[in-house]
Amino acid sequence: MRELTVDLGERSYPIYIGEGLLQSAAVYFTKHGISKSSKLFIVSDTQVAPLYLSSLEDHLQSEGFQTASVVVEAGEGTKSLAVLEELVGKALEAGLDRKSAIVALGGGVVGDLTGFLAASYMRGVKFVQIPTTILAHDSSVGGKVAVNHPLAKNIIGAFHQPELVLYDLNTLQSLPRREVAAGLSEVVKEGLIWDREFVDWCAGHSKELLALEPAALEYALYKGCSVKAAVVSEDERETGLRAILNLGHTIGHALEAVAGYGELLHGEAIAIGMVGSAKLGVRYGAPQEVFDRTKSLLASFGLPVRLPGHLDTGAIMAAMMHDKKFEANKMVFVVPTAIGQVEIRNDVPAEWVREIVEELKREA
Amino acid sequence: MRELTVDLGERSYPIYIGEGLLQSAAVYFTKHGISKSSKLFIVSDTQVAPLYLSSLEDHLQSEGFQTASVVVEAGEGTKSLAVLEELVGKALEAGLDRKSAIVALGGGVVGDLTGFLAASYMRGVKFVQIPTTILAHDSSVGGKVAVNHPLAKNIIGAFHQPELVLYDLNTLQSLPRREVAAGLSEVVKEGLIWDREFVDWCAGHSKELLALEPAALEYALYKGCSVKAAVVSEDERETGLRAILNLGHTIGHALEAVAGYGELLHGEAIAIGMVGSAKLGVRYGAPQEVFDRTKSLLASFGLPVRLPGHLDTGAIMAAMMHDKKFEANKMVFVVPTAIGQVEIRNDVPAEWVREIVEELKREA
Repeated sequence: MRELTVDLGERSYPIYIGEGLLQSAAVYFTKHGISKSSKLFIVSDTQVAPLYLSSLEDHLQSEGFQTASVVVEAGEGTKSLAVLEELVGKALEAGLDRKSAIVALGGGVVGDLTGFLAASYMRGVKFVQIPTTILAHDSSVGGKVAVNHPLAKNIIGAFHQPELVLYDLNTLQSLPRREVAAGLSEVVKEGLIWDREFVDWCAGHSKELLALEPAALEYALYKGCSVKAAVVSEDERETGLRAILNLGHTIGHALEAVAGYGELLHGEAIAIGMVGSAKLGVRYGAPQEVFDRTKSLLASFGLPVRLPGHLDTGAIMAAMMHDKKFEANKMVFVVPTAIGQVEIRNDVPAEWVREIVEELKREA
Repeated sequence: MRELTVDLGERSYPIYIGEGLLQSAAVYFTKHGISKSSKLFIVSDTQVAPLYLSSLEDHLQSEGFQTASVVVEAGEGTKSLAVLEELVGKALEAGLDRKSAIVALGGGVVGDLTGFLAASYMRGVKFVQIPTTILAHDSSVGGKVAVNHPLAKNIIGAFHQPELVLYDLNTLQSLPRREVAAGLSEVVKEGLIWDREFVDWCAGHSKELLALEPAALEYALYKGCSVKAAVVSEDERETGLRAILNLGHTIGHALEAVAGYGELLHGEAIAIGMVGSAKLGVRYGAPQEVFDRTKSLLASFGLPVRLPGHLDTGAIMAAMMHDKKFEANKMVFVVPTAIGQVEIRNDVPAEWVREIVEELKREA
């Protein structure tokens, strides 16, 4: 078992990563100020709840906690104000008060939705995250919680830090292989922006990680969370440094939007985006290895590194322009300068980006 | 013009109270970090917008600000997640980004709704309050913002402090007389919990206040905001002291619920509640003058001090029990110990409260 602390002054909190943590959740809850007198309200979804919800509730109840739970539909559509309103109703019916705690058991969608519920219910109650996907390592650090609006994703939200995060590696064993790779894409990203040694380690352990070998997975999640924690500690409210976490996301978000959500998983779209950013880095003078290694590393995880040819370049460019509201011909990008190092450039010619999108379609 | 500061460390902000401030809003905006490069999004309601919105927008635009505005239906029904979702859509269409500021022009409903919009849009943008009722002096201090759920009022919200509050006394001149008195009820409350001298001053100036005489009004709002600011500075997140602001509210909320919203204005209901609390104070040993002066002071403002006889005592007791989830026979009350001084008691026998409700019906 590994532990790290997200250092945010008064709002600091621990992340525990290990096997079988769900079965000792009560110990960690108690240790971090969630007492048995606090009622617990657990939110999970239709994919995760059948696997882990009743055993978690049984465990907590046998340790003397009072729990109530609710299961939401799996999928991005659940991150809405309408579902939030339903959850508030259930929380009221369950008698949740200001001393209660709200627990998210699931992936990123459940974490974001439940986190915003915890941030806004009675103007804020305690929050615990139990992520059940690899991708959720990302949203479990930093306190960004939100729901979607029909016109924009994650537009209604808050910064609300959890009291603790429990990452039980056993819950990851049930993930489909494609989601494993897509989740690892964000883990690799943490290396690419911050830590060359960790990039080297990832390159040497792709097989173990794809096979969900616990020791490798524990280390990778520990390192991924640590990088994100270091960045977030310096910039909790996302006013500067935190932007480097968006490596690959400008192109990635545009691909998700143009392909329609579903064709490309988030981690797959940002893998292609990271290859594009590496190309940009080389144009700005980074060594060729930045591109070569980024591409081969992502490919070794079975992630796509080529842009699907049927996606229209104009539409991709328009989506980027819309997403970030860039000035006419200058775009902002996180650009690698070396393996494990990036800079933020706000002067990237849109023409270069267009050329790179075209190149990404042609190359294998 | 008077100015006071709500002292909350990094989140401190000024309140300006005076005549004609709407016409110099640009000066105060600029002084407090709302620059002309920040787009402004103004929310008002169908009662207030026809009177003041276009002149405010004209002024701001003539000073070089970019503004967009939206008018919501007046009334408590507007404080909903559905309206919040509409406003987020309009804000997106208006191109609001993280550097923009959202302005509430109106009473408590507009302030609460717009404040929660500012708290949650893109996880929080700058917020400016321009209150147009006397009652809103209360919600303009302390950063409590929220919308309602069908099952509970103010249950979904945040603590989000404004950058500044502009209280233009001219906007109060259009208030109906009944709302003037109801608003002054909360002003008198600030005196009763904290400041005997201010209670004496109120008693000597009820006529001037009811006539909306600017000098008296300016002083009363300044003192009311100052008391609330002092309390909130010591307890921003409402963990202790801040509860004294609820003098009269336990009975008051129950009366509003049982009478149906509309029969009693909020300030009227809490006036009756404050008379009840004073009765309770005398039972606990406060001098008789606490009751006599509280009642005569409120009556001098034309506020009700007797509980409408047709309201059922059992229903009122049930509403109190439901509202605060009290233990079986012990209730929590803010209880006056002297004029300008209160204590919080958590051991009030429900039977005493029932007797006082009955007495409040009988006495003139």
